[in-house]
Amino acid sequence: MATSDDIKATIDNYRAHFSADRAAWLALFAADATVEDPIGSDIRTGHEQIGDLWDFAHSLSPSIELRAAGPTCVAGNEAAFPFTIVNDFDGTRMAIDVIDVMTFTDDAKIATMRAFWDMAAMRELEP
Amino acid sequence: MATSDDIKATIDNYRAHFSADRAAWLALFAADATVEDPIGSDIRTGHEQIGDLWDFAHSLSPSIELRAAGPTCVAGNEAAFPFTIVNDFDGTRMAIDVIDVMTFTDDAKIATMRAFWDMAAMRELEP
Repeated sequence: MATSDDIKATIDNYRAHFSADRAAWLALFAADATVEDPIGSDIRTGHEQIGDLWDFAHSLSPSIELRAAGPTCVAGNEAAFPFTIVNDFDGTRMAIDVIDVMTFTDDAKIATMRAFWDMAAMRELEP
Repeated sequence: MATSDDIKATIDNYRAHFSADRAAWLALFAADATVEDPIGSDIRTGHEQIGDLWDFAHSLSPSIELRAAGPTCVAGNEAAFPFTIVNDFDGTRMAIDVIDVMTFTDDAKIATMRAFWDMAAMRELEP
């Protein structure tokens, strides 16, 4: 089983690479990983479909940052962690709060991801 | 389906009642609710077994407070939220970070709960 430190390192890289390194971000997922983002949407399976999610997010906003918003809670081979997505639309910064819940393979790759967020909670950040 | 506001109200009461109102806390759960706390432990089903969890926690510490530690993220009939459990052991306050993930019935009662935490992350709070 992956250690808690291994899992936390994967999550740190997940946030860091989302902004600008598509290949490094996708490499954090197992080949047959599944993603449900947001909860209730169709499940994406595998790197090609998960890459589509990255492309879609980046097509909406030229600048995306995932900021840690509290402690990562690891339990066995699962983890949950809060973060804030900050999008920059021509100088207007919009934020939305998210909690991701993930399971991990023995080598600390993401096996499943489910994202808790609600577009109604999006807000403008002060300049 | 329960509204986002209904679900958030249940979660606010879940944190508030845990300190000192066992009956009000248990009433937030559906009759056949399940609880996995922490992730990986045996599933508790129904009010009697979930009440045992309340009793066990309160047998360990004379004072328990669940403090919100960030935004509640609701998606459909599910939600995740971060909080900190603060225990007072004869004046020594110990804290542990938790993320609970829940599903809800149409009347905003808790149908399932899974708790992400790791005892290794417990820390002493400054007086």
